[in-house]
Amino acid sequence: MNSGATDTVTNNWPSRRVTLGAETPMPLDCGVAIGPFTVAYQTYGSLNADRSNAILITHALTGDQYVADEAHPVSGRPGWWNMLVGPGLPIDTDRFFVICANVLGGCLGTTGPKDIDPNTGKPYGLSFPVITIGDMVRAQKMLIDHLGIEQLFLVTGGSMGAMQALEWAARYPDAVFAAAPIAGAARHSAQNIAFHEVGRQAIMADPDWHGGDYFSHNVVPSRGLSVARMAAHITYLSEAALHRKFGRRLQNRDALTYGFDADFQVESYLRHQGSTFVDRFDANSYLYITRAMDYFDLAAEHDGNLAAAFAGTKTRFCIVSFSSDWLFPTSENRDIVHALNAVAASVSFVEVDSDKGHDAFLLDEPGFFEVLAGFINGCAKHRGLA
Amino acid sequence: MNSGATDTVTNNWPSRRVTLGAETPMPLDCGVAIGPFTVAYQTYGSLNADRSNAILITHALTGDQYVADEAHPVSGRPGWWNMLVGPGLPIDTDRFFVICANVLGGCLGTTGPKDIDPNTGKPYGLSFPVITIGDMVRAQKMLIDHLGIEQLFLVTGGSMGAMQALEWAARYPDAVFAAAPIAGAARHSAQNIAFHEVGRQAIMADPDWHGGDYFSHNVVPSRGLSVARMAAHITYLSEAALHRKFGRRLQNRDALTYGFDADFQVESYLRHQGSTFVDRFDANSYLYITRAMDYFDLAAEHDGNLAAAFAGTKTRFCIVSFSSDWLFPTSENRDIVHALNAVAASVSFVEVDSDKGHDAFLLDEPGFFEVLAGFINGCAKHRGLA
Repeated sequence: MNSGATDTVTNNWPSRRVTLGAETPMPLDCGVAIGPFTVAYQTYGSLNADRSNAILITHALTGDQYVADEAHPVSGRPGWWNMLVGPGLPIDTDRFFVICANVLGGCLGTTGPKDIDPNTGKPYGLSFPVITIGDMVRAQKMLIDHLGIEQLFLVTGGSMGAMQALEWAARYPDAVFAAAPIAGAARHSAQNIAFHEVGRQAIMADPDWHGGDYFSHNVVPSRGLSVARMAAHITYLSEAALHRKFGRRLQNRDALTYGFDADFQVESYLRHQGSTFVDRFDANSYLYITRAMDYFDLAAEHDGNLAAAFAGTKTRFCIVSFSSDWLFPTSENRDIVHALNAVAASVSFVEVDSDKGHDAFLLDEPGFFEVLAGFINGCAKHRGLA
Repeated sequence: MNSGATDTVTNNWPSRRVTLGAETPMPLDCGVAIGPFTVAYQTYGSLNADRSNAILITHALTGDQYVADEAHPVSGRPGWWNMLVGPGLPIDTDRFFVICANVLGGCLGTTGPKDIDPNTGKPYGLSFPVITIGDMVRAQKMLIDHLGIEQLFLVTGGSMGAMQALEWAARYPDAVFAAAPIAGAARHSAQNIAFHEVGRQAIMADPDWHGGDYFSHNVVPSRGLSVARMAAHITYLSEAALHRKFGRRLQNRDALTYGFDADFQVESYLRHQGSTFVDRFDANSYLYITRAMDYFDLAAEHDGNLAAAFAGTKTRFCIVSFSSDWLFPTSENRDIVHALNAVAASVSFVEVDSDKGHDAFLLDEPGFFEVLAGFINGCAKHRGLA
């Protein structure tokens, strides 16, 4: 390790934390710099002697660093990719050193809008700078440098995690041996921006939001955040999955009540999704992270030419989409493949047949697990890690 | 005409109104009865001598009776189907007598939750009974009886209007010579219930809603209603339409602002949709009408057998869907066709190729206009109206 407080590779609790940017603040895309700031992260497995077996997992909008823990510190639920990451699993922690960091702007340990601005002694709130996917990745690169890792064996993640994986490969090609962006896109679509805007407006419409300064009023905009989560949650599922799981079945009743209670199971489920979300997520973080996704447009950073983002790349890519995902559809993932093909990159592409919608990347999808395991094993051989 | 205040067929302003259920209140599906109640409606064209040329147009969730007026009394915009209804148009007001009534529970003249409960002298608010598509149609039947029309030549409408057209044909088969349900479904899907529930929760989360009693507080829950409208509006469009109309283009600026203003045109457009909607629509009406759609399940009224709803029907049907409509997709419209085929009904079915999403039924879609004009002209010949 280069420096600092973390010098072992066993897990600790609740998260490892490292302070970065203390001497030189990190420049952000918006034009200001941030520092010092904290990155909270988890690791699993052991770094090998030549530091060539590190896998960085990048999390989605409402994800976090607890990718393979037995119990999340807030929700108590298992890690969000615990079916994929662990001993003997496709991301095998007996072979690989797995790192997952809470994103910049997040609310589970890494500096975000709910944290204290060292310059004012008060929570940032809306004075937190608007960050981008590029900024998140820049902070992760500082973490990886801090850990003394020159090249990651693999960067992988789903949804917003895929955006980060693409940004890593475009920005630091020599530091990424392989990349597996899952159910992602090289830019956020108009429809997805629209859904994010609905969520933000729901939060901002809540009088308890107080212009982002709710902590000083000892409240949280839980109603607005709950509505935002409900709207978003529908987009994570497919119509087929909703029909299969709920259809028009009633919730603990035999007949319609002719009222506005949750008569239907799907209503009850959505309300539960909304109300539990507010216990684990910060409303301002939701604003900032959705904004970072909206701003993501990898081609725009290269004069509108997505292929130019990957010119000369030696990284091996595996792009995965899910057939019923309408939030990050196969067509958007195929656009990435076309750009990679245009620069003769090594790329494999699989559309996994699933009726589970965008959420499929978080669920038990054996076809997806096989694809990822095959890609990882193939790359490991090339890297001399077999 | 049988009775009452309306005895001419020229338009008046703002709407014709008739009081119904004064002597015998109208029974509702929820088990209570309502009466007296008002139905506000518009007519266009003239009823012929044998009263055989009447077309009832049934409106959608946020539609109203101003189907072909030059200017809506609130928004000032032209009638919502003015490209389809008028002299020489597919629904030709030189040949047909067109009726369109605001639905029960609505907020443009027909009795709804914002109106005064004659029993209390105060607005109904949430004491208004929860109504169904069946109840809306029952009230329309009373209007048609009042107008002295035994059989409608045609009942047609899109979206929730299609639900009403189906309900008409199932409940009063002898009173419906032809029916054209456009972009509809025989039941509301789990995904659609879910989106409605998000909208309702957004309204109810607004402190200005006051449990539905906002009028007595001299406020309206405009923030919640605006968010509800924004979420719903996305579902009316297709991803392709959003991409074509807006893509990632910026709104009156050359670069991202790194803030939470409406940087993107699609955000600005959605905000506008939300803010203008609250000027013309009542929040409680939105709750009641979305609930009526959620409750709609024509098969459930016939022991789960949709075909049984149409057994023995002599009505001629034309079912229309739009290829990019993901709210009321072609598959749901095809289910109606299969049920009609199972009872050997006269039915034609067309999926119109369009990238405009569900909204296509309100837009300039020449393919749709041709289909409807052809169906109407064919039926008119059979009815001796050619």
